[in-house]
Amino acid sequence: MENNTETRRPVILITNDDGFRAKGIEALIEMAKPFGRVIVVAPEEGNSGMAHAITIKAPLRITKRSKTDEFELYSVTGTPVDCVKIAMNQLFTNPPDLILSGVNHCSNASVSIFYSGTMGATIEGSLYNIPSIGFSLLDYTENPDFSATVHYGKTVIQSVLDNGLSSGTCLNVNVPVLPVNEIKGIKICRQNKGVWKEEFDKRIDPRGQEYFWLTGYFHNSEPDAADTDEWALANGYISIVPITTDLTNYREIERLNQWSITNKQEQKHAAKNR
Amino acid sequence: MENNTETRRPVILITNDDGFRAKGIEALIEMAKPFGRVIVVAPEEGNSGMAHAITIKAPLRITKRSKTDEFELYSVTGTPVDCVKIAMNQLFTNPPDLILSGVNHCSNASVSIFYSGTMGATIEGSLYNIPSIGFSLLDYTENPDFSATVHYGKTVIQSVLDNGLSSGTCLNVNVPVLPVNEIKGIKICRQNKGVWKEEFDKRIDPRGQEYFWLTGYFHNSEPDAADTDEWALANGYISIVPITTDLTNYREIERLNQWSITNKQEQKHAAKNR
Repeated sequence: MENNTETRRPVILITNDDGFRAKGIEALIEMAKPFGRVIVVAPEEGNSGMAHAITIKAPLRITKRSKTDEFELYSVTGTPVDCVKIAMNQLFTNPPDLILSGVNHCSNASVSIFYSGTMGATIEGSLYNIPSIGFSLLDYTENPDFSATVHYGKTVIQSVLDNGLSSGTCLNVNVPVLPVNEIKGIKICRQNKGVWKEEFDKRIDPRGQEYFWLTGYFHNSEPDAADTDEWALANGYISIVPITTDLTNYREIERLNQWSITNKQEQKHAAKNR
Repeated sequence: MENNTETRRPVILITNDDGFRAKGIEALIEMAKPFGRVIVVAPEEGNSGMAHAITIKAPLRITKRSKTDEFELYSVTGTPVDCVKIAMNQLFTNPPDLILSGVNHCSNASVSIFYSGTMGATIEGSLYNIPSIGFSLLDYTENPDFSATVHYGKTVIQSVLDNGLSSGTCLNVNVPVLPVNEIKGIKICRQNKGVWKEEFDKRIDPRGQEYFWLTGYFHNSEPDAADTDEWALANGYISIVPITTDLTNYREIERLNQWSITNKQEQKHAAKNR
């Protein structure tokens, strides 16, 4: 469908987890348009909390929603990761130069990355080895002011196009709710070690049966650690955490190799084969 | 509901992604029973490919299915991660000593960890800072032979109970389809850098509309790397990859700090505030 050689302009794939009608995706299109040809492939419906989920039990449908001089927009009856997969496989002859996800209507800093459909799609992009950036604004409302996100987002996109990202690495960009001129700048951070403290709102249905709504609040277990994303956001900075797709804890490998389980078994096998 | 102080035996929470009726969970109960008191909280239905998804738009229901001298079993109308969250919040006064997930009826080695509900629940367990282990057997059928998994799984559980796991680290354990006496032992590995190559099975529905089934195959991009999980499994070993919940790519932080985006912005702000 795409012929990337027609022009030398970068081709940019955009997705999100709030669905193709969300305001955040409009902001992301505005952010991306100056840099190249934009193809939007986003879920039909909201997919918050869908993480890296893929659709196995149902087929996917893809619908062309609009085409302008500046972008094409498709919706998919699946998750954000499904959107990346079907776009990569059905819409592009040559892979896109950049994948952008968001702008999410709430924070994806710290461990929220694990639950986030926005970041699921971003990580999926980097599994395809395409530079990928997830954007989130710390505003939970339906119609936030994305102007600071668009302003600084353009700087981030330009830098990624200029410098690339290391293989298997994507960016988790979070933006505090501040006017452009009050944002102190961009800070490169590590992921804060906070946790979600869950509380369930227990209710009784009209038939007398219990049901539970997941609620909860984020607890920052290291509020003074100035090298984390949560600190940057709380102190007026945009946070960027480079995210790896290699989840191996290399230090723990050394520790586990001290355990008896590996050596004993291997020795036994070596003895048996002698 | 639980009173962990009644006995000194460890309390073990079990979940999976294939649903509470799966054979794999029976194998996991058998594996865990010798070590302590077992509480099973698993999805009502199969949740393969649900990754780290949580249920936000619907409430959860929890149903007590059975209780024996050896274990209690509950089903939840949600994802594997929902199961961990609701169990932690509604069923335990004191946190369990161990969380086990699986046994999954297919491989979760290499990047499959990103899509896996089994590993989503395991990672969630380590976000609660509880030693957590995900088990997968490389057999896609409904009724596999779990005897080697149970045999070696007991060794792994005993070692984790004896040694603990480092904070924010869980284990991804995969077992090749071999009889116990043909398994060469356990290898501590890093995550293989393979990828899923997606192909979509495109079909036309009776109304003439296109739809797509996600298919695909795993491509091992480093088949000769003997320190990876895929190599271990292909060579008759059980693979254990220690998984981190800190997704920060620390090396990339240094690289990004060379970019102009951080320094310039901060210098500008510093100048403004002078």
